[in-house]
Amino acid sequence: MPHTEYEFASRTVNSCRRFHWIPSLQRPPCGPRTNVETYEGQHSANKASEVQKRTFGSAATHNQRNPAYSELNSDDVCYFKSILGDNGVVQDEDRIAVANVDWMGKYKGASQLLLLPKSTKEVSKILSYCNTRRLAVVPQGGNTGLVGGSVPVYDEVIVSLAGMDKIISFDNVNGILTSEAGCVLENLSTFVENEGFIMPLDLGAKGSCHIGGNISTNAGGLRFIRYGSLHGNVLGLEVVLADGTILDMLTTLRKDNTGYDLKHLFIGSEGSLGVVTKVAVLTPAKLPATNVAFLSCNDYTSCQKLLLAARRNLGEILSAFEFMDHHCIDLAIRHLEGVQNPLPASQYKFYVLIETTGSDESYDKTKLEAFLLRSMEDGLVSDGVIAQDISQASNFWRIREGISEASVKVGAVYKYDLSIPVEKLYDIVEEMRCRLGDNAEVLGYGHLGDGNLHLNILSSKYDDSHKEEASVQSMVWA
Amino acid sequence: MPHTEYEFASRTVNSCRRFHWIPSLQRPPCGPRTNVETYEGQHSANKASEVQKRTFGSAATHNQRNPAYSELNSDDVCYFKSILGDNGVVQDEDRIAVANVDWMGKYKGASQLLLLPKSTKEVSKILSYCNTRRLAVVPQGGNTGLVGGSVPVYDEVIVSLAGMDKIISFDNVNGILTSEAGCVLENLSTFVENEGFIMPLDLGAKGSCHIGGNISTNAGGLRFIRYGSLHGNVLGLEVVLADGTILDMLTTLRKDNTGYDLKHLFIGSEGSLGVVTKVAVLTPAKLPATNVAFLSCNDYTSCQKLLLAARRNLGEILSAFEFMDHHCIDLAIRHLEGVQNPLPASQYKFYVLIETTGSDESYDKTKLEAFLLRSMEDGLVSDGVIAQDISQASNFWRIREGISEASVKVGAVYKYDLSIPVEKLYDIVEEMRCRLGDNAEVLGYGHLGDGNLHLNILSSKYDDSHKEEASVQSMVWA
Repeated sequence: MPHTEYEFASRTVNSCRRFHWIPSLQRPPCGPRTNVETYEGQHSANKASEVQKRTFGSAATHNQRNPAYSELNSDDVCYFKSILGDNGVVQDEDRIAVANVDWMGKYKGASQLLLLPKSTKEVSKILSYCNTRRLAVVPQGGNTGLVGGSVPVYDEVIVSLAGMDKIISFDNVNGILTSEAGCVLENLSTFVENEGFIMPLDLGAKGSCHIGGNISTNAGGLRFIRYGSLHGNVLGLEVVLADGTILDMLTTLRKDNTGYDLKHLFIGSEGSLGVVTKVAVLTPAKLPATNVAFLSCNDYTSCQKLLLAARRNLGEILSAFEFMDHHCIDLAIRHLEGVQNPLPASQYKFYVLIETTGSDESYDKTKLEAFLLRSMEDGLVSDGVIAQDISQASNFWRIREGISEASVKVGAVYKYDLSIPVEKLYDIVEEMRCRLGDNAEVLGYGHLGDGNLHLNILSSKYDDSHKEEASVQSMVWA
Repeated sequence: MPHTEYEFASRTVNSCRRFHWIPSLQRPPCGPRTNVETYEGQHSANKASEVQKRTFGSAATHNQRNPAYSELNSDDVCYFKSILGDNGVVQDEDRIAVANVDWMGKYKGASQLLLLPKSTKEVSKILSYCNTRRLAVVPQGGNTGLVGGSVPVYDEVIVSLAGMDKIISFDNVNGILTSEAGCVLENLSTFVENEGFIMPLDLGAKGSCHIGGNISTNAGGLRFIRYGSLHGNVLGLEVVLADGTILDMLTTLRKDNTGYDLKHLFIGSEGSLGVVTKVAVLTPAKLPATNVAFLSCNDYTSCQKLLLAARRNLGEILSAFEFMDHHCIDLAIRHLEGVQNPLPASQYKFYVLIETTGSDESYDKTKLEAFLLRSMEDGLVSDGVIAQDISQASNFWRIREGISEASVKVGAVYKYDLSIPVEKLYDIVEEMRCRLGDNAEVLGYGHLGDGNLHLNILSSKYDDSHKEEASVQSMVWA
């Protein structure tokens, strides 16, 4: 399926620990972290312990720059040119402007220097120098994150991994890919697919995001339900620490119990412990048969029951279970060219996209058809359609993947990416809708199979007067 | 399938990094660790930095006890009784004797005290006290490990988790099990199967091993090829550190990117960083259809090609791919009651057990039959048989799982558990056979799909004169 639109699928917030329905669980020792409401800028590899906060909004940066960080001078630039050459040191305003701002145009830094190392040694030299000089650094991958994690807050030096985009090796017996961290996910995907394998993760931003960024943010995405977390799929990493030390954990073995498995600390720590420079990933065998169905449900309970039924009856071929409320569909139809509702006959409250991937086209389709028939008989599904060709399947995916793109067109988007137990997942959407009334449009969609909700609040412009109402945190602690 | 025999599947040694065929990979920062030849006793939670070595053999413990550790006295025993009660403090010689020796009878400690805490708080109090008093501690689960990791080296206090065997909760929508660490794997397995799910790991020792021990040793086992590593399946942990601090990382969310994911440090660190007291595990949906085939191959290359073909053609239903050389089969037939070769017509060099698990019995069987037919036509398989009922399937598994049990009956067993790239996996078996000649019997078997070789060297008794020849390490550095 083509997933060409941008979509944030990298940071998941555990909010359930703060919800009253699991009172027995304590708050994590590291403390909770929210994505949007309060941004804790852990991305400086130089001084992870000093976090900086800023509130969301179009240009809001209320905190002061930490004066302990040095300011860039011409000697620094000379040094960087001496190790990277002129091409690796970017001072051109237009090029830096692109790296200073996130894809949403919501977070904007004021860096004056973009560095493009070509090797791990160069990354090491950069970080070692910046550490000594106390220059703040922000590592940057494809800059596709939607919560400001990949752009500077102030004048940090941007270290882009874009120049480290080489595939190092591929073991086509065991499906083990080793590459540099700056490889674009889609390029890796195309490469391994030609070898008969697939990447264990897939997300809307695949055309731009880097595998190093995927790992640093512990990206989930669309294949999580089938292939699980990167903690299970990343076999090895090479990482450069803030002082320039290179940590070689680049094993390519499926099982490796030697010593402490330190690589996991770097999966999801967002560059705060080091910069990922090389990765070894286990890639599953590519299976030839994909089928996609687009269904409607009358209520959220039916969506949940459908998920359970899909797990039982589609079992080993289930590869995606995405849900969207009707607000998402309406938005996609309004703002995306060529998008139509595959089930236009009536208005439904919820829509579900189910994908199966297996080794036998006709058998899998028969199985999916039987499943849908039974689900309709059981009253879980109101209406449904199975894609008859790749074009139809792409159209179904286009709706699900286009929601982010469509929501940007409205104006301001407050985005939350939440992990909540499935049975309670939609409550927060309804609560938010109730709080905001006509002030904003509230969308709920996401990876239901993973208990992962994308909660988007749309408004014509960013407005701090809505801040309190639109705050997940205020609901949590209320 | 019933897996009732003991089998070690917990520690995997990365030896490939030390083999000449991957010269570009550096040794890991933590240094290599072998399981048997040199034992680095990292299991003392009190002082992880001071490792003790001992060579293998029936009673060989050549190194001195670290005098920095205190000796147990009657005040200590009184204190433990004050927190655990009389039943939680075991001084009975017979009961301690069982906890002092491993299942193989090869490693024997001299502990005088076995503690049986019933709660995390009790574990915390024990470790806090031992830390202050500098009493060495060895945490013990089911004591099913085969390399001496679960028994004392000297007079360490044994802290058994056997009393912490309660299931805390099960989320039967998402398949998330939360339990205490002392639960026996088979009990958990039975429990979740009744709910329509399965444990993501299965191993020969399931009837005795604890889930806490599985996690502390990062057990792989028979379902690894299908469900992957515990790093992907363990959602949360509660751990008590050596000073008694309780670390609550017991999240039950499928996705959780809040803070640093510290739990991974405790998966596979063998109790050296802390004692696992509670676990949350993701359990996959139980699928109704299991098929088992037993095949023979004429050479190792055919086994490899068969694995690749199985990944492609059985794809989503492949749940085990185990291989054994004919020495294993001969041994099992000689020493295990009622075991027969399912393919007696001729002598083959290699045997492969393939298991499929899916949602449709007849379809899966048809698929497996077609696969076998094609593999025979392609010359990969010499002969093969598909189990017609559960009894036959159990018999096939009995051969594979009985190898450990049969090997103990010979006398002395030198056991290695190695991760090696599949294409080179069998070289080391042949090299060992060549070195040892008639002095010992060398068996090669294991989880081919995971690149995990069990290399067993059998001799009538432990004899240090074979030590050098039987050393994997000497081959590695040669």
